[in-house]
Amino acid sequence: MSSLMRHGFAARSTGSELFFETASTLRKAASSGDAKAFAKMFVELYEKLMAERPSSMASLNALRRIGTYFLENGLKGIEEYIDALASEYDESVTRAAEMAAKRVVDGDALMTNSNSLTLRRLFKTLVDSGVKVKVYVAESRPGLEGLAMAEYLEKLGVEVYLIVDSAARFFMKNIDKVVLGAEAVAANGAVVGKAGSSIIALDAHEARVRVFVVAPTMKFSIETIYGELLKLPEGDWRLLMDEDTRRTLPENYMATAPLYDVTPPEYIDVIATERGLFAPQAIPIVLREIHGSFPPLVKPLEAIVAEVKRWLQ
Amino acid sequence: MSSLMRHGFAARSTGSELFFETASTLRKAASSGDAKAFAKMFVELYEKLMAERPSSMASLNALRRIGTYFLENGLKGIEEYIDALASEYDESVTRAAEMAAKRVVDGDALMTNSNSLTLRRLFKTLVDSGVKVKVYVAESRPGLEGLAMAEYLEKLGVEVYLIVDSAARFFMKNIDKVVLGAEAVAANGAVVGKAGSSIIALDAHEARVRVFVVAPTMKFSIETIYGELLKLPEGDWRLLMDEDTRRTLPENYMATAPLYDVTPPEYIDVIATERGLFAPQAIPIVLREIHGSFPPLVKPLEAIVAEVKRWLQ
Amino acid sequence: MSSLMRHGFAARSTGSELFFETASTLRKAASSGDAKAFAKMFVELYEKLMAERPSSMASLNALRRIGTYFLENGLKGIEEYIDALASEYDESVTRAAEMAAKRVVDGDALMTNSNSLTLRRLFKTLVDSGVKVKVYVAESRPGLEGLAMAEYLEKLGVEVYLIVDSAARFFMKNIDKVVLGAEAVAANGAVVGKAGSSIIALDAHEARVRVFVVAPTMKFSIETIYGELLKLPEGDWRLLMDEDTRRTLPENYMATAPLYDVTPPEYIDVIATERGLFAPQAIPIVLREIHGSFPPLVKPLEAIVAEVKRWLQ
Amino acid sequence: MSSLMRHGFAARSTGSELFFETASTLRKAASSGDAKAFAKMFVELYEKLMAERPSSMASLNALRRIGTYFLENGLKGIEEYIDALASEYDESVTRAAEMAAKRVVDGDALMTNSNSLTLRRLFKTLVDSGVKVKVYVAESRPGLEGLAMAEYLEKLGVEVYLIVDSAARFFMKNIDKVVLGAEAVAANGAVVGKAGSSIIALDAHEARVRVFVVAPTMKFSIETIYGELLKLPEGDWRLLMDEDTRRTLPENYMATAPLYDVTPPEYIDVIATERGLFAPQAIPIVLREIHGSFPPLVKPLEAIVAEVKRWLQ
Amino acid sequence: MSSLMRHGFAARSTGSELFFETASTLRKAASSGDAKAFAKMFVELYEKLMAERPSSMASLNALRRIGTYFLENGLKGIEEYIDALASEYDESVTRAAEMAAKRVVDGDALMTNSNSLTLRRLFKTLVDSGVKVKVYVAESRPGLEGLAMAEYLEKLGVEVYLIVDSAARFFMKNIDKVVLGAEAVAANGAVVGKAGSSIIALDAHEARVRVFVVAPTMKFSIETIYGELLKLPEGDWRLLMDEDTRRTLPENYMATAPLYDVTPPEYIDVIATERGLFAPQAIPIVLREIHGSFPPLVKPLEAIVAEVKRWLQ
Amino acid sequence: MSSLMRHGFAARSTGSELFFETASTLRKAASSGDAKAFAKMFVELYEKLMAERPSSMASLNALRRIGTYFLENGLKGIEEYIDALASEYDESVTRAAEMAAKRVVDGDALMTNSNSLTLRRLFKTLVDSGVKVKVYVAESRPGLEGLAMAEYLEKLGVEVYLIVDSAARFFMKNIDKVVLGAEAVAANGAVVGKAGSSIIALDAHEARVRVFVVAPTMKFSIETIYGELLKLPEGDWRLLMDEDTRRTLPENYMATAPLYDVTPPEYIDVIATERGLFAPQAIPIVLREIHGSFPPLVKPLEAIVAEVKRWLQ
Repeated sequence: MSSLMRHGFAARSTGSELFFETASTLRKAASSGDAKAFAKMFVELYEKLMAERPSSMASLNALRRIGTYFLENGLKGIEEYIDALASEYDESVTRAAEMAAKRVVDGDALMTNSNSLTLRRLFKTLVDSGVKVKVYVAESRPGLEGLAMAEYLEKLGVEVYLIVDSAARFFMKNIDKVVLGAEAVAANGAVVGKAGSSIIALDAHEARVRVFVVAPTMKFSIETIYGELLKLPEGDWRLLMDEDTRRTLPENYMATAPLYDVTPPEYIDVIATERGLFAPQAIPIVLREIHGSFPPLVKPLEAIVAEVKRWLQ
Repeated sequence: MSSLMRHGFAARSTGSELFFETASTLRKAASSGDAKAFAKMFVELYEKLMAERPSSMASLNALRRIGTYFLENGLKGIEEYIDALASEYDESVTRAAEMAAKRVVDGDALMTNSNSLTLRRLFKTLVDSGVKVKVYVAESRPGLEGLAMAEYLEKLGVEVYLIVDSAARFFMKNIDKVVLGAEAVAANGAVVGKAGSSIIALDAHEARVRVFVVAPTMKFSIETIYGELLKLPEGDWRLLMDEDTRRTLPENYMATAPLYDVTPPEYIDVIATERGLFAPQAIPIVLREIHGSFPPLVKPLEAIVAEVKRWLQ
Repeated sequence: MSSLMRHGFAARSTGSELFFETASTLRKAASSGDAKAFAKMFVELYEKLMAERPSSMASLNALRRIGTYFLENGLKGIEEYIDALASEYDESVTRAAEMAAKRVVDGDALMTNSNSLTLRRLFKTLVDSGVKVKVYVAESRPGLEGLAMAEYLEKLGVEVYLIVDSAARFFMKNIDKVVLGAEAVAANGAVVGKAGSSIIALDAHEARVRVFVVAPTMKFSIETIYGELLKLPEGDWRLLMDEDTRRTLPENYMATAPLYDVTPPEYIDVIATERGLFAPQAIPIVLREIHGSFPPLVKPLEAIVAEVKRWLQ
Repeated sequence: MSSLMRHGFAARSTGSELFFETASTLRKAASSGDAKAFAKMFVELYEKLMAERPSSMASLNALRRIGTYFLENGLKGIEEYIDALASEYDESVTRAAEMAAKRVVDGDALMTNSNSLTLRRLFKTLVDSGVKVKVYVAESRPGLEGLAMAEYLEKLGVEVYLIVDSAARFFMKNIDKVVLGAEAVAANGAVVGKAGSSIIALDAHEARVRVFVVAPTMKFSIETIYGELLKLPEGDWRLLMDEDTRRTLPENYMATAPLYDVTPPEYIDVIATERGLFAPQAIPIVLREIHGSFPPLVKPLEAIVAEVKRWLQ
Repeated sequence: MSSLMRHGFAARSTGSELFFETASTLRKAASSGDAKAFAKMFVELYEKLMAERPSSMASLNALRRIGTYFLENGLKGIEEYIDALASEYDESVTRAAEMAAKRVVDGDALMTNSNSLTLRRLFKTLVDSGVKVKVYVAESRPGLEGLAMAEYLEKLGVEVYLIVDSAARFFMKNIDKVVLGAEAVAANGAVVGKAGSSIIALDAHEARVRVFVVAPTMKFSIETIYGELLKLPEGDWRLLMDEDTRRTLPENYMATAPLYDVTPPEYIDVIATERGLFAPQAIPIVLREIHGSFPPLVKPLEAIVAEVKRWLQ
Repeated sequence: MSSLMRHGFAARSTGSELFFETASTLRKAASSGDAKAFAKMFVELYEKLMAERPSSMASLNALRRIGTYFLENGLKGIEEYIDALASEYDESVTRAAEMAAKRVVDGDALMTNSNSLTLRRLFKTLVDSGVKVKVYVAESRPGLEGLAMAEYLEKLGVEVYLIVDSAARFFMKNIDKVVLGAEAVAANGAVVGKAGSSIIALDAHEARVRVFVVAPTMKFSIETIYGELLKLPEGDWRLLMDEDTRRTLPENYMATAPLYDVTPPEYIDVIATERGLFAPQAIPIVLREIHGSFPPLVKPLEAIVAEVKRWLQ
């Protein structure tokens, strides 16, 4: 049993971390050669994702593709398939970061939050190409993922300002561009991101600062076209904290918090993907090019899971 | 030497707490009967306020009035004068809260932040008159004053939700009215408040939720009319934390944070004062009624301080 | 017993008609010389107004002034006082119309609704001074007051287009200025008007067409400053109809309708009064000039009524 | 001669009713086996539609498809073709309603107007799946189609509030979602709907209430891409009324009224079709998928009609 | 006969130049001791102003005050009165510039147009106090007054960029604050300024750059309250040009141009006057303080002129 | 050596003029039969364009297509290819103008600037079809291309008003539609046009006047999708003037000016092309239809140039 299964998904892990955990968990299950075990793990992972990270689109899309492969081919070649999928994702993250980097110029002050892999790659690309930037990082309560990002940036040698989330509007006057990651991108260009992202985007919109979302197309959602709503889990935010931090808080409040929020398309200027830079309104045509039709005629993930379950019986 | 002088102003103390500390410190200095000592303390307090809380308008206005009294009358009767001033302030806080309470109806869901005395009185008034409300309180990093407010509300028996600051926009859909306190109200109706207040007001404005600022007129600023800008101190926000909390943070970042921010008048619907409820645009006429002319012809505080200094020599 | 008392206020009567009915009813009661009877009628009228037309500010302000006079002077001279009040109102209506007329130029296409006396005077002034206008009149369901206005305009010889309420946005492209009456003007410049007025103002705001509200200052509300909300009665709108029209409607729905709605100040360009043309934001200073202070220190109407009741006992 | 031809199109009939009348009239004409008679009826219908309901896109698209079939195949198999077309339309209406229904949740308060078949199906779907909603229906003067919708809803057991059109803004504070039908959807996402629809959408936009237009893609317009404007017929609105209602109105005004108005795409959140839910900006790509190119290379309807006319000679 | 009378007002002269010419012309007329000659000159000047510069409020207000003095006192002491008036104006220009200067900080990039005396003083004040700024000056076609301002700034040693008017939006991204002069300030805070000013203000508003209008209160208009519109003269703009420039233009077009335009209050942040800095919405209360009532009860200028004319007969 | 090469591109030449010069220069080079000479001229032209007119997309797209042809076929048939390309462009200009003309109705007042060939064709089409319009032409400093347009319109017999650029907002109240040309259309629908165009579009947007950009699809840019920014050259604007005009200006200022500016898609209603009328948001799908995929998989121009250079060695 993988460590992922044992401990539950860290709510604080990024969408990319979850994608790689999903892929490696399934790859390991496949390596045993036991199709039943693989199928069980597949169903288990799906249910876990739906319960804990239902808007983590990269992982859901990975399940869709691996499940489809499995139903068609069994375990044969599935390890290579998963490896290829993981490489494809990894490269698309890098390429999306490079696309976004073309719009950042020397001396820019950027603002971000959380700890997205895609944004780390963006900052790495900038450092590697000698583009000097200042980065304001919101600490991103309650998970405090922004601290990890700040540490990463400091190691890269970037000038970094760690700010409390409520200071985003105050410092916006210093900012040239906002860069944000994503859990999912809906078909209408709305972006599900780390809770608080939509406030930063709103602050930027108010101040006429451009907002770039950097996300590989594997985070694009199709189901939203058919009326499904992206699910945004809420929970007691004390559970998201280190024990040390939690200890400083009172125990007896309703302390519910969203893990994610939705930034509407009108607050986003560009969605940078591995295929190029797009206005949010262009997402439908990108989906069309990827899937060959619009709306895309892909099998719903839940239908695939149902089929796997039937196969198991 | 007062404890206020010894320890510095707690950045986390509210504007009202600072007002009462200012008043009681000066009253105590006066009670000795030593005019020189009083004058020295007066100057010291002024300089401390300008350095640490330059937008704490209730305290600055208190200095203006007590300084004027002192220059005209010496210490004679000054203790009574200060007592009356403190009572006046206290009553105006209560009355402003009562005015605001008239606009809250049973079942309303309110959002607030920080730990303002004026808002505590508003909530107390509501509870006393049997108006049931739900209150969402933003924790108000880095000082976490929202925790104290949440505790207060829970003791009052109010249904209270403690939220992280970055969840304000997410929960705005549940909110009927936003209620905010103030450090200062500028002549054009802009409000200086606890850092993060302007984000909550912007979120409310976006969602068409009404924003009430509750503030006695002693927080109204006059100097802004003559071109002075309200000063907003910034500082390393780790200094604002409990040692426990601070321990959880990295030590080596630029972690500068504003203590206050400015909410522009277009995001405020009503400023509730002891004199009534006003649109931000009506502040000039309220200032006129208080001071008998517009712009008010009051002696600038720094001129009063200069005179006290001259008197000291 | 006056016909007013017998039949109830026609919900469809205008604010000015109600003012004159209020004044004449009290004048008649006074003419008997029986102060008790007068006082009873006064209380009765107040209660009726609060029940049926609580936002009809001209009438409420008339009650305030007549009640104050009565408490100070009894019936002595009260008939002359009421006559003078009625003349003052009548002249202020004419003068407000004349002020507004200065902003209408030959060839303008105007849009209005309902059947306000003030607007009738505006149109009369225009005709008398040879300014040719076209007027689009919304029929103003359910009361259909717009039909009466259209008839009036046709008799004046004005080119008039009667439109359904839902066509206001469609025809706004033809319109140069919107002119609206008012039941009450709040201290923040918001205007209570015939239901549907706020939609016309919103349509005009969207199309960048200027909106003029024409209202004598006797329709200005003071109580709103102290937190009182203007009350907007709702009712079954079938009751507002002619029997003929009502007959065409089904009997068994919840058919509740507002009689009035509130147009926020941001959709109003000018409030034309007998004292001049003002932006909504200038209402506080106009109130200050009328009452000598801001907020005005007038006795609340309910306090006057309470005193009359005590006198009655 | 069909009853449709005898009596003229009821201006109050919905776009779907008109579609079915158009289809059944042509089917009946075809059933005689007389191609000339069919062709004449085809031309007659076209001219009637252009004169009286030129924005009734479902009918115009039906003519385009039936006319194309006729030119290619004569009457052979045309009855089956028309039957299939009618079934396709009927199913697309049902499916669009189901898509929209996914976004309505238990307890929602909806607002609508007129009497669209698509919306009836939406409400039916909700009732059938146990989703309880309240519906505010604007009466939709002058045709008063809202009354019929209210009756339908009451029979379904839905809690229904019949409101006058001018009360839409007043009640918007109670509303969770607005649902509207359409006569036509332009290539840029603008929607032609029953007159007054654009005001409701504007009111909703002001209040940040989401607007759903429910329309099968057969109502999508192509000609608008080539510069043709959607025609919006105006007429004397007294003609649209029952005699009873008309009797209550004066006879001698210019009482011109639009039957339809245009809601710009910025006031529409989602267009629900049988193919999915789309932002207005996604209409071009949907058109592309339907027609295989963008702009679609379909023969203009007027060219088809010209060809039929030539054939007739 | 003064040179002013001989040559006509240069349309390109600033409002302040016109004020001083008006004052010195009348002073010279008074110095002869011939009251009739003075009165004639007064009437002549008034008519010339109304014909050529009807929105040049400083001059019109000067006429109002000098005319009132003359009607009350004849020529006695009038030279001193005019001298005092000119000094008062001159000082108010300086003081308004100083007030505005408090809001400019070292390193600011400013944008302006035309050649206002008030702005020259602002720039002089900044240079004198060691505040370094960059200034972008729009050339201000057709009069090209911006060239003169650019020359003045260059002599002061300020870094100056001369731009074409149509580049204002392009360069706005470099700008920290816009500073504009005024011909007149209406009671609602709208500002009449050199043609093109409203475009710069709109560009600034779009980019969230603050707009400061610098104007002594002698430019405040009262008549607008009573419904009078500020008149904006138009003319053939070739007449405004140097002969050299004009030679480069075709002769045969309709080349009408406004000399002034109106900037609405919503695009103005601060109006800097000798009495302080005010939001546009505070103009009514400033007028009230100057004139002792609101609306001000001053004699209309045309009534004064009529009286002078009667006196002349 | 062509005259184009000798004299440099006139900065004031339109994008279409530049296209035809580019095509004819290459055609002439090809006619010699010397492939090396052709290739050198190709590279030279590319470098000149990138230096002086880097946003002149029609010319850059022409280079892309001619370069591709040359690399595949050498000079064989290249003259015919270039001729066909020029005809295609010419026809697309005419057709785009005709599409736009369908939206102009008799009596419309239009506003434009500069001297675009596409707009000339639009006006010619209107005159030829008997549609009477008034046209306001901004003179378009510093190049004054508007003068040439005004002369053209006058010769056509159109009622034309030549206005200074800074009067665009003033006259917008008279305007029914704004029509603009383009140098380039970005993939997100933003339009690069003659400097000042974006101000006119902003003024129109403020006044709710519709903005039509008329541009053949050969002006559509693809590179922007991959992160490239459209380059907007700046220069000393005195160089753009006639000597006569320049003589009237001071010599010693920084007089830098943009030749072009960018109008964001939200200020554009329709982009009229030879393929139809599109909202800016539909540009991606039009690009897809032209190139067969989205983002289009065309070889970057700089890669083509690099290949030509390699061939040369």
